[in-house]
Amino acid sequence: MDGILDEVLRRIKPTQEDIRFVERVASEIIQRTGEAISRLGFSAKTMLVGSVARGTWLRHDPDIDVFILFEETLTREELEQRGMAVAREVAGPAGEEKFAEHPYVTMKFHGLDIDLVPCYDVADPRRIKSAVDRSPHHQRYVKAKLTPQLADEVLLLKQFASGIGVYGAELKRQGFSGYLCELLILHYGSFSKLVEEASKWVPGEVIDILSYYSDKSEPKLIFENQPLVVVDPVDPGRNAAAAVSLQNFSIFVRACQDFLDRPSLRFFFPKRVKLLTPAGLDRILKRRGTRLFCIIFRSPQVVPDVLYPQLRKTERAVVTRLAQEGFEVLRSDVWADSISVILVELAVSKLSGVKTRVGPPPNISAKDFIQEHLSSRNCLAGPMVDAAGRVIFEVKREWTDALALLKDIMSQRISFGKHVSEAVSQRYRIYEGEGLKKLLNESGFREFLSEYLTRRLPWYR
Amino acid sequence: MDGILDEVLRRIKPTQEDIRFVERVASEIIQRTGEAISRLGFSAKTMLVGSVARGTWLRHDPDIDVFILFEETLTREELEQRGMAVAREVAGPAGEEKFAEHPYVTMKFHGLDIDLVPCYDVADPRRIKSAVDRSPHHQRYVKAKLTPQLADEVLLLKQFASGIGVYGAELKRQGFSGYLCELLILHYGSFSKLVEEASKWVPGEVIDILSYYSDKSEPKLIFENQPLVVVDPVDPGRNAAAAVSLQNFSIFVRACQDFLDRPSLRFFFPKRVKLLTPAGLDRILKRRGTRLFCIIFRSPQVVPDVLYPQLRKTERAVVTRLAQEGFEVLRSDVWADSISVILVELAVSKLSGVKTRVGPPPNISAKDFIQEHLSSRNCLAGPMVDAAGRVIFEVKREWTDALALLKDIMSQRISFGKHVSEAVSQRYRIYEGEGLKKLLNESGFREFLSEYLTRRLPWYR
Repeated sequence: MDGILDEVLRRIKPTQEDIRFVERVASEIIQRTGEAISRLGFSAKTMLVGSVARGTWLRHDPDIDVFILFEETLTREELEQRGMAVAREVAGPAGEEKFAEHPYVTMKFHGLDIDLVPCYDVADPRRIKSAVDRSPHHQRYVKAKLTPQLADEVLLLKQFASGIGVYGAELKRQGFSGYLCELLILHYGSFSKLVEEASKWVPGEVIDILSYYSDKSEPKLIFENQPLVVVDPVDPGRNAAAAVSLQNFSIFVRACQDFLDRPSLRFFFPKRVKLLTPAGLDRILKRRGTRLFCIIFRSPQVVPDVLYPQLRKTERAVVTRLAQEGFEVLRSDVWADSISVILVELAVSKLSGVKTRVGPPPNISAKDFIQEHLSSRNCLAGPMVDAAGRVIFEVKREWTDALALLKDIMSQRISFGKHVSEAVSQRYRIYEGEGLKKLLNESGFREFLSEYLTRRLPWYR
Repeated sequence: MDGILDEVLRRIKPTQEDIRFVERVASEIIQRTGEAISRLGFSAKTMLVGSVARGTWLRHDPDIDVFILFEETLTREELEQRGMAVAREVAGPAGEEKFAEHPYVTMKFHGLDIDLVPCYDVADPRRIKSAVDRSPHHQRYVKAKLTPQLADEVLLLKQFASGIGVYGAELKRQGFSGYLCELLILHYGSFSKLVEEASKWVPGEVIDILSYYSDKSEPKLIFENQPLVVVDPVDPGRNAAAAVSLQNFSIFVRACQDFLDRPSLRFFFPKRVKLLTPAGLDRILKRRGTRLFCIIFRSPQVVPDVLYPQLRKTERAVVTRLAQEGFEVLRSDVWADSISVILVELAVSKLSGVKTRVGPPPNISAKDFIQEHLSSRNCLAGPMVDAAGRVIFEVKREWTDALALLKDIMSQRISFGKHVSEAVSQRYRIYEGEGLKKLLNESGFREFLSEYLTRRLPWYR
């Protein structure tokens, strides 16, 4: 295993040259930010946070986050106005304003991605006003604890999580944040020790780094129904692993089990998904014999952390309604860049015209049940009594064709995400089966569809 | 309600003329049987049993059962030889030999159906050698208790059970025997009292006429899992209602509830099923949009009490296998006269090529599950992890076409009834959808199919 980890480090650890370059860029941007603050006459501090600030960045992914810290006495509005003024001043026309929980600016500088993020400078991290105010505390905590050797172990973990597809706490991914990776290494001391322990994790795992919760049952009560709980050392009321979905938790545990069993570079550097050609798509669709629908519309102008939860909510609404009407959904997924896609794959797209309604067992009155169905125009047969003695009716199924039902769902838009609903109401199209070939030119979509149809945990590719 | 019951009695109660005729025929056949016994030099008694003997016969259904009672000292072989010799002597060439549990002879005499049944004359009904030996005891018990007024109430109950489709203990019907009807009237005292009480029955109902089981829990232990228990007064170890299926029990209870609610002649004389024309069949099949298959073969040469359980067993085997392979069976049924029919109606007859195999949750090793599926040629996608954290695979479904699967089931004949399996192995055909029109000339089948497709509890027709 050690040979493999050495090889991984050799590939992912920044060289001295990489480090000199990135650090020069970072200090230049910090300096500019300071100058902008002075020029605008504000009272604020600057702080480099994130992986570059801690020496835990992957060579191919330097991530420079500059925080602009204002006094707590400012109103939210003043903070945003002044913070964005500074950020705009620094970024100039190259900057791009974004809005997640709060506004911030992203820019390219010497080819690197840089985030300029205004926040409050809060002394006690348990009293922060919004999530971004916590980042400077995380920065100080990790910086103080992390030795260069531990930083290497963090790199291994980040690459591992990335390779198996669970790296990143953003809502699109619902995986392991960089900070979570750092905490796990601080707790277990090394990547290999973590892997060994995590291979035995079960959902509901609690990792309480500072032993803040002496009574074992306490964190479970606070963090109920979370697959993984890593108590945040700077704010014990917070779960640093709150973003991790049960699915990604389980993938991580399986990866650790499999890696212990057969260590391999594949976990860190999986094979890429083979892109399907039109002919390949035909072949695989024919082999599956399913009905694959993609509902496609222009992505609403919101950040991925807003869009993805809405897409998933919409996906759930579509799948739930299809299932209610008797259409078994084999699998579904969502994807977005400039277009958004909700994919649903059905085992069967035409159903019979008959639906069985099962009434009460022999010992319960069936009078209302019978009256209601007898007077319905949809009654095909019944009342009957089945082998279990229950009264049953056969009624006309409302939707027998999945495509027609899908169109109804899209016109009703019940329980859709707000921005998604607006976008869909403008225009949407449903592509199906062979019709999907038209979309293969869209390279991002092509990768999404190829991965979907040949899905396999990355280290098994 | 009384007016209705009077009208029913008026229609079903034999007139004085009917009674004189039937009694003359009965005594003539009894006399002939006695003569035959003397002529053959046997030592045996004759006894008229059944509804005619008790005055509980429906005008249109006089049922004359003559029992020939031999001494217990005979071997089974001697009993059958001598009994059948007597029966043949009585019936002459008009007789037809049948075999249920034991051989007996049926004949027509002055236009009436007569059964000649040899049995042992057993003093203690708890020591009988076979079920037929119990009939003379039932005869004596009922004859001693039943007043002419109670006999009228029995007629009402028999007609009611017949009208709602649950009259007859034969295995084709699994309903209420004539004897059971008599016991219920003896217990409750009148038809209307029975209806009132039965409307409150729940499965597991125990009626212990002679209060043989003083400890309430005892009969439930002996007669476990039987929807209705009526302790036989001549043999308390026997449930006189053992034949009643949960389905028919439930139909009876529902009928009683509905009759109390709205008494009507419909319960006694339901509308007949409308026979479907070929065009009507087309219409209804189109409306249902299901796939209706009838597996048809020549009926094996066995009595209905042997054939029907085998047909149902075969039906279960077919339905179970279809369901295992993913084909949802909406309803199924069996029917027979010279041909036998197993009907299965499917919601969908073509399935997708993909079947999802769900593996263990996150806390259980998935190693074997993954290895087994990865090495299979049928693996389409996976291993994946679903939202619940379980490992899943998608594998190629073995059967995607219901007709092909049905043919496979018919060639394997696993868990089929013995005689049915033999008959099917000779030849069978599968008719489907519009193809069923060819069979509408078979009037019995036509009625069966018409009833199946428009099924409704008879009093709702």
